[in-house]
Amino acid sequence: MRVGVVGGGQLGRMLGLAGVPLGLDFVFLDPSPEAPAAAVGEHIAAAFDDDAAIAGLAGGCDVLTFEFENVDVDSLVAAAGGTPVFPPPGALATAQDRRSEKEAFEAAGIPVAPWRTVDSREELEAASRDIGLPLIVKTRRLGYDGKGQRRVLADADIPAAWQALGGVPLLAERLVDFDREVSVIGSRGADGALACYPLTENVHRDGILHTSRAPAADAPLQLLAEDHLRALVERLDYRGTIAVEFFVAGGRLLGNEFAPRVHNSGHWTIEGAACSQFENHLRAICGLPAGACRTRGHAGMLNLIGAMPAADGVLAVADAHLHDYGKSPRPGRKLGHVTVVADTPAERDRRLGDLQALAAAGTETRSL
Amino acid sequence: MRVGVVGGGQLGRMLGLAGVPLGLDFVFLDPSPEAPAAAVGEHIAAAFDDDAAIAGLAGGCDVLTFEFENVDVDSLVAAAGGTPVFPPPGALATAQDRRSEKEAFEAAGIPVAPWRTVDSREELEAASRDIGLPLIVKTRRLGYDGKGQRRVLADADIPAAWQALGGVPLLAERLVDFDREVSVIGSRGADGALACYPLTENVHRDGILHTSRAPAADAPLQLLAEDHLRALVERLDYRGTIAVEFFVAGGRLLGNEFAPRVHNSGHWTIEGAACSQFENHLRAICGLPAGACRTRGHAGMLNLIGAMPAADGVLAVADAHLHDYGKSPRPGRKLGHVTVVADTPAERDRRLGDLQALAAAGTETRSL
Repeated sequence: MRVGVVGGGQLGRMLGLAGVPLGLDFVFLDPSPEAPAAAVGEHIAAAFDDDAAIAGLAGGCDVLTFEFENVDVDSLVAAAGGTPVFPPPGALATAQDRRSEKEAFEAAGIPVAPWRTVDSREELEAASRDIGLPLIVKTRRLGYDGKGQRRVLADADIPAAWQALGGVPLLAERLVDFDREVSVIGSRGADGALACYPLTENVHRDGILHTSRAPAADAPLQLLAEDHLRALVERLDYRGTIAVEFFVAGGRLLGNEFAPRVHNSGHWTIEGAACSQFENHLRAICGLPAGACRTRGHAGMLNLIGAMPAADGVLAVADAHLHDYGKSPRPGRKLGHVTVVADTPAERDRRLGDLQALAAAGTETRSL
Repeated sequence: MRVGVVGGGQLGRMLGLAGVPLGLDFVFLDPSPEAPAAAVGEHIAAAFDDDAAIAGLAGGCDVLTFEFENVDVDSLVAAAGGTPVFPPPGALATAQDRRSEKEAFEAAGIPVAPWRTVDSREELEAASRDIGLPLIVKTRRLGYDGKGQRRVLADADIPAAWQALGGVPLLAERLVDFDREVSVIGSRGADGALACYPLTENVHRDGILHTSRAPAADAPLQLLAEDHLRALVERLDYRGTIAVEFFVAGGRLLGNEFAPRVHNSGHWTIEGAACSQFENHLRAICGLPAGACRTRGHAGMLNLIGAMPAADGVLAVADAHLHDYGKSPRPGRKLGHVTVVADTPAERDRRLGDLQALAAAGTETRSL
């Protein structure tokens, strides 16, 4: 089977690495001449709004998927023609607008922080009264990695937040005083069965995922997360891999965001689980049975951002697995990640600490 | 770093799959327009004796390696120019001739079955007297997967064996009444350190590897195999991954063959060990530290030969990992393999049994 992928970044690259052993062929559409996924498939260098190019991609493939979310859903559906698109474009559309995303959580019975849509400074002021401070204000569309967000801790912050973000549809929500951030990643097959990975605990820095650790929950919290995920994917008539980010606050899970695709907080599944989120996504969209989500010990993942550490240092850490995306270094850019697997959480954290020290001393040059 | 690989079959494909995450780029030289490795790197379609093409390959790469053994070593060295070649070409030359291979085993203190070189029918008759029957007669060069071999069980078999194989340099050796066949795979780095995987038990059918199971030895046998391997790689001044096949007979290990490359009996290391034989080969030839060889449970590998079973059946087996090489089906051709990992040998064997049943019912068509 030939799989067309809208987007050819590191997620596409890891999809390809998971799919080539299954005998799948890949075509990636991505405007960047340096698309990381080009190493593992054909690369169509075209813009994401180039409908003719997407139609060409779809026409040459048996199934279409995406690893980049900011595409126009109506155009995607039209360009796909008769080629099936998974995850379903409706789920992508839902995730593209923070309002429909919150409504989907609520409709699935998943608690969320109080929120309001905001289209004027007056509405922002009203939201701060209705919901209460502190708030976080976000653009409803096109936000990622903390971009398009401002905090409103006091009324005095409102003018600056409005000035920074106003003019596009916004959403204000109560800033959650959470204990920790977790995500649950699952993959739903053609038969509707949901394969679910253990909860992952995530630490962000400057709005970008910094580390993930899994498994990260006791049985009750895991079951709660799986129930939430199941309710959401059934509502979305979902097929493929999906990630839902939650805040853990007082033993409750509050839905924050969901990503209708493979997700950075699931990269640890490549070495830390029997079957990775990438392979399970491909199995799901190709109509194959899901692989086992069971873990192989305790996994930790460190994103490599802005600069790559020397490969020989990273690979000297026991059971460390380097993923270099082959991208040019740039401040704030995700260039790679390292996963460690260990028999105990303490050993995992020790290795992750060693890797963090190496990454902090990262060179500006590519290592290999 | 850019890695040039002579050969672009499934071994090259798996090298690429292991190396892309490390940030390595690949160029494969292989005459086949359908070279499986082309999915994960640039493909130079040229003959293995095309010195200009090999020189072009070497010139564009930082390091040269091979996954195909039947290349002319002198030409390879000349074509490589200043580009380093690992494993060392001398080790390749040693492995190419069964005589120098046996001598290398003996020089390393590794027991082997009694053997003689044979260049005439008279010498074959003399060998049968000196060594004793039963014998196995092999061409000294260019044999693989049981090709170029004949058994001599009685004097009456000599004429047919000579007729089938005579005219090229041969080697006759005593047929070992072995308890089982095992292999040890290790990877030796630039620093001379040897990383060694647990022994693998191999079952051949019609001269082709059928199944592998690991780990397959108690501690004393493992230590003995590692001592043998260490003695051999030191003698060969080796760098990279190497496989040595032994017969186990009465608690002893008899050296049979070695392969100066990644090896079919080590495919289970992709999912069954912390770091695979492929990644460790690349780490070694690129001057990086070795990854851990420790196992993740009990692994079993089944070669898929001649026809591919349906992917959905294979992937429904718990913790089964399909490797489809993307080759056209042909009787006797290795088209793929499946690895299973389990917590116990019994569960591993049960899953392997399920896979063998599926493979026996294999369709002639490609599955995905």
